[in-house]
Amino acid sequence: MILFYSDYLEGAHPEVLKRLAETNFDQTPGYGLDSYCDEAREIVKNVCGTPDADVHFLVGGTQTNVTVISSILRPYQGVLCASTGHINAHETGAVEHSGHKVLPLPSTDGKVSARQVSDALESHFNDPSYEHIVQPGMLYISFPTELGTIYTKEELSGLKEVCGRWNIPLFIDGARLGYGLESSQCDVTIKDIASAADVFYIGGTKQGALFGEAVVINRESLKKDFRYCIKQNGGMLAKGRLLGIQFSTLLKDGLYFRIARNADLLAEKLTEAFKAKGYEFYAKSPTNQVFPILPMETAERLSRRFGFENWGKVDDRRIATRFCTSWATTEDQIDELISEI
Amino acid sequence: MILFYSDYLEGAHPEVLKRLAETNFDQTPGYGLDSYCDEAREIVKNVCGTPDADVHFLVGGTQTNVTVISSILRPYQGVLCASTGHINAHETGAVEHSGHKVLPLPSTDGKVSARQVSDALESHFNDPSYEHIVQPGMLYISFPTELGTIYTKEELSGLKEVCGRWNIPLFIDGARLGYGLESSQCDVTIKDIASAADVFYIGGTKQGALFGEAVVINRESLKKDFRYCIKQNGGMLAKGRLLGIQFSTLLKDGLYFRIARNADLLAEKLTEAFKAKGYEFYAKSPTNQVFPILPMETAERLSRRFGFENWGKVDDRRIATRFCTSWATTEDQIDELISEI
Amino acid sequence: MILFYSDYLEGAHPEVLKRLAETNFDQTPGYGLDSYCDEAREIVKNVCGTPDADVHFLVGGTQTNVTVISSILRPYQGVLCASTGHINAHETGAVEHSGHKVLPLPSTDGKVSARQVSDALESHFNDPSYEHIVQPGMLYISFPTELGTIYTKEELSGLKEVCGRWNIPLFIDGARLGYGLESSQCDVTIKDIASAADVFYIGGTKQGALFGEAVVINRESLKKDFRYCIKQNGGMLAKGRLLGIQFSTLLKDGLYFRIARNADLLAEKLTEAFKAKGYEFYAKSPTNQVFPILPMETAERLSRRFGFENWGKVDDRRIATRFCTSWATTEDQIDELISEI
Amino acid sequence: MILFYSDYLEGAHPEVLKRLAETNFDQTPGYGLDSYCDEAREIVKNVCGTPDADVHFLVGGTQTNVTVISSILRPYQGVLCASTGHINAHETGAVEHSGHKVLPLPSTDGKVSARQVSDALESHFNDPSYEHIVQPGMLYISFPTELGTIYTKEELSGLKEVCGRWNIPLFIDGARLGYGLESSQCDVTIKDIASAADVFYIGGTKQGALFGEAVVINRESLKKDFRYCIKQNGGMLAKGRLLGIQFSTLLKDGLYFRIARNADLLAEKLTEAFKAKGYEFYAKSPTNQVFPILPMETAERLSRRFGFENWGKVDDRRIATRFCTSWATTEDQIDELISEI
Repeated sequence: MILFYSDYLEGAHPEVLKRLAETNFDQTPGYGLDSYCDEAREIVKNVCGTPDADVHFLVGGTQTNVTVISSILRPYQGVLCASTGHINAHETGAVEHSGHKVLPLPSTDGKVSARQVSDALESHFNDPSYEHIVQPGMLYISFPTELGTIYTKEELSGLKEVCGRWNIPLFIDGARLGYGLESSQCDVTIKDIASAADVFYIGGTKQGALFGEAVVINRESLKKDFRYCIKQNGGMLAKGRLLGIQFSTLLKDGLYFRIARNADLLAEKLTEAFKAKGYEFYAKSPTNQVFPILPMETAERLSRRFGFENWGKVDDRRIATRFCTSWATTEDQIDELISEI
Repeated sequence: MILFYSDYLEGAHPEVLKRLAETNFDQTPGYGLDSYCDEAREIVKNVCGTPDADVHFLVGGTQTNVTVISSILRPYQGVLCASTGHINAHETGAVEHSGHKVLPLPSTDGKVSARQVSDALESHFNDPSYEHIVQPGMLYISFPTELGTIYTKEELSGLKEVCGRWNIPLFIDGARLGYGLESSQCDVTIKDIASAADVFYIGGTKQGALFGEAVVINRESLKKDFRYCIKQNGGMLAKGRLLGIQFSTLLKDGLYFRIARNADLLAEKLTEAFKAKGYEFYAKSPTNQVFPILPMETAERLSRRFGFENWGKVDDRRIATRFCTSWATTEDQIDELISEI
Repeated sequence: MILFYSDYLEGAHPEVLKRLAETNFDQTPGYGLDSYCDEAREIVKNVCGTPDADVHFLVGGTQTNVTVISSILRPYQGVLCASTGHINAHETGAVEHSGHKVLPLPSTDGKVSARQVSDALESHFNDPSYEHIVQPGMLYISFPTELGTIYTKEELSGLKEVCGRWNIPLFIDGARLGYGLESSQCDVTIKDIASAADVFYIGGTKQGALFGEAVVINRESLKKDFRYCIKQNGGMLAKGRLLGIQFSTLLKDGLYFRIARNADLLAEKLTEAFKAKGYEFYAKSPTNQVFPILPMETAERLSRRFGFENWGKVDDRRIATRFCTSWATTEDQIDELISEI
Repeated sequence: MILFYSDYLEGAHPEVLKRLAETNFDQTPGYGLDSYCDEAREIVKNVCGTPDADVHFLVGGTQTNVTVISSILRPYQGVLCASTGHINAHETGAVEHSGHKVLPLPSTDGKVSARQVSDALESHFNDPSYEHIVQPGMLYISFPTELGTIYTKEELSGLKEVCGRWNIPLFIDGARLGYGLESSQCDVTIKDIASAADVFYIGGTKQGALFGEAVVINRESLKKDFRYCIKQNGGMLAKGRLLGIQFSTLLKDGLYFRIARNADLLAEKLTEAFKAKGYEFYAKSPTNQVFPILPMETAERLSRRFGFENWGKVDDRRIATRFCTSWATTEDQIDELISEI
């Protein structure tokens, strides 16, 4: 069996493991206050072109989302996001558990538009009983989205503009950031992300690390006391250096982006193969997730040799599926899959 | 100006005020542990035909909703309701503030169907990643709904059945319960409500009391320690007897229902008058809320002498409006309004 | 039986009831946006000498405490208070339920000193692992305290100074404010309270109203969006005018203070009577609560004709007790009690 | 410099790293649903003698504590613990953030007695206003405690008995479990722990793993839906197998206990050396934490070559300190330290 269920099926990139082994017996203080984390913070700021940012390392995505969001919002505020957003759909209500309503905006491609955000804010403050309604306090988007799609530079600027106008922070979930940035259809750089977002994170878990997300806080007013929030949310890893070492290894000479590029190219090859067979797609993803709509029997046949996700019935004869490539996927694996389509 | 904005524009029914004055200097223990509350609890149980129920008195609707809901759900559970449900739309996220996601089901008439509830539950437990999704833990409905509509006895049985099958409690928000039960189109009695619901409440605030909601808990497992929950949620009135006295007065000889009936009849008269003029309605409400869709200029003209709510634009020429009658509305007031339509 | 259990045994001062009856059929908008509340807000600001304050009316004390505290604190902050503070001891963890630790400072007389507060803050920020510890984010005191004691003007200034120095808000719970201010041993005026506190409230429930607490917010940064917080915490009374009417009646010509003065004088008389019999006191309260330590048999004997609280065993032969006077207590009642001591 | 600050200064035991490297390219499903985790669960149950337990793997201690505690308590309940308990003192109020009060019992040696627990419960339910007070809903203890001390088998039985009598769950934080069990003064086995606790965990982070805590749930009623809680609290590691692999490696042939034993022996040696010099101890720890009280100048001198924690001033001339040994500490390191004492 070759598995394409997700992008977290294997361990870590060998370089990462090697560095962890090499540094294993170094003695360092805990909780991210070590020199490996310091080094990693400098690298992150350098890569992002944000010398004044604060950089923190957390363990996983849900934890990062809830820590960032609950550190920003006042009690009566909620977070705007696409209805497909991870915080709305797949985090067991972690944001609500922290006391805040998720305010979903309808989306079929995983994205939200500046217009939707602007309308939501206007409609809130124009409602005569606005004090009886959750106030939109920030915007959460994913780059790339949960459906593999990516915002254009122009769309991103539009979102930034509307957030600025209403003075609500823009938070970008970059759990798969590299796969987005390295897409051949992407006109956005990591510096564009860093410049648009008040807070964002660079995902490690799905891109070569054992685990870890690097949070970059740009807006001055959101920096204060963030480490208390990390600790309170159970995200302050005792051996914080494990995060610093991993992010240094991945980011210091571009490894993070090279391995993402490879995953995107293999996903493109796979997309072309499905297209060539005449299949449609549930979502038009130019990144490492591919969503072909397959006849039941084809899906059934493929599932004997390959692991992939059932994304839901489309009609009586067909289901949508998801195949993920990752930093660990090889061309051989993709070719084997293509030969069976 | 005559106001029809809502059903909480005046104080209390004169009988209620009179009883409060008569008992004013009685000395009683606080927090609902007095004999007036005991008496009221007996009356409520008698009226509902639920001798084994627990009855508690709280001050207002949002407080009651959040206290009941958060006392029932486990941390990772959410509450199913109509998208128009008060807890979803008009309580500033009080339920989310208590840590729980509201799980809205699409609704245009304020109601949810047994099928919708059943589908939501099935779809949750059939999802392979269900543990990453908020689990539906109870159902909240309003009787009558926020759009003045009412469930039939059959619909109510259907909801009860599906909740029973999935073993999730059914909670009925009866903030306007009397106006629902006294509607000429209603085939449901308070005993039907009491028998369908695991928990429900009889609204006082909008029906003749100064304030107050009487919570009736039927399901044994939901009774334990509910008074701790009331206190923790700031709902335990020091002079609890004020609630007991009001509910005794309203319920002991049917005053509650008589005044609701009057409001419904006046609302019916008003509805007929709008119909006679050829106006359509935003919602088909057989209770004390009337939602005519009016030409802008008509609305504008009426608003000079009458207060009513703007319920949102319907198209370029028309807006939906809401006129509420209440226990305090007189036939003269309605006639004056009708003469101006 | 004559009851001295608490200061919320009766209904409301007759003037209050009278005004409620007179205004009963006036139609007003809900939620505190009516002219009665506007008038009451002006009176409160005038009485307090704080023309720029924001004034809000809530229903009860626990609700007010949790709404104010959770509107102020960031998620990782807690509230300093005396170990005897109401929020620490008698609100079923409402503050913790809102996500914040209560940080009790040891106290035997119900008060905290500026030194204690200063030490707590210093010790927090001097701890090398301060990010692993809840940060003190505000100070809560009660005036008078839960043991009936009162801060002197100098003590209050000291607390104000230390809070200012550390930039944490000072919140004064004035559930029994009048009983404190009218004590013959009090050198503090309501204007002193208003000038020391960033937020405080004037208690109505225990002093002549049916219910209600008037929150006064002085610090500019704490004013924004407070009404959302009230609504979210279930404290926004639909018929808000009931609160406005009550506070206007109590405050506009000093009724609030006159009835408190009466309660304090009767409590003093009672204190003297206990002293004359040689009894000691659990707390040296110069306000409306009296805490004599009584021999078991005396307590037992008195309890046949009078209601009072058992405040806990002091030794094998004696228990501490609490007798409360209130706005409703008459000299006859006190004399009858004294004759039995 | 040789560091004795804590027991999480190094990476992982080499065997653990080796297994992670060997399995790195295996493809497994995420979130702990892989065969490595299955294997580890079996090993844990076997080691604990609890074939019917549920076993879950989480990343860190604070996360584990808050997930377990908030999954057990009802909203108005709190958790009893020693005042020195980690959840009370060093988790930035994570438990309160989840809505629950921590109910500290005074402790100078890190332990609580059955009597204290029993008294707290009795005193709660005997208080006439118990509904206004947080209800003790469970007991949290640490084994060993934060001061390195350990409960005897008899003490543990006593706690179990009182918890059983009051029907509240007993939760044992075993962040340093091995160091406790392997102490030469310990008369408790892991099976005793497993039999006393309703829930407990075996700490990996401080004992040879990169990170990870293995939660063992014995009480049937606490098992349901725990994975939802893990996810909601951000504790469900995407690459869950990392946890399974680590715990299998540590537990399958006793490595976990052997390395703990080594740390304890070195700590004993160090303790003897301090004793020989006549120093007193802040806590009498028979495990891997040593708390000598040192003259200022000695502490200052040692700090030039060795890292250790300042545990607070004892008097004007002396401070308490903490030296930790760990699975990674060598006899050479200890000897070097001893030679400088």
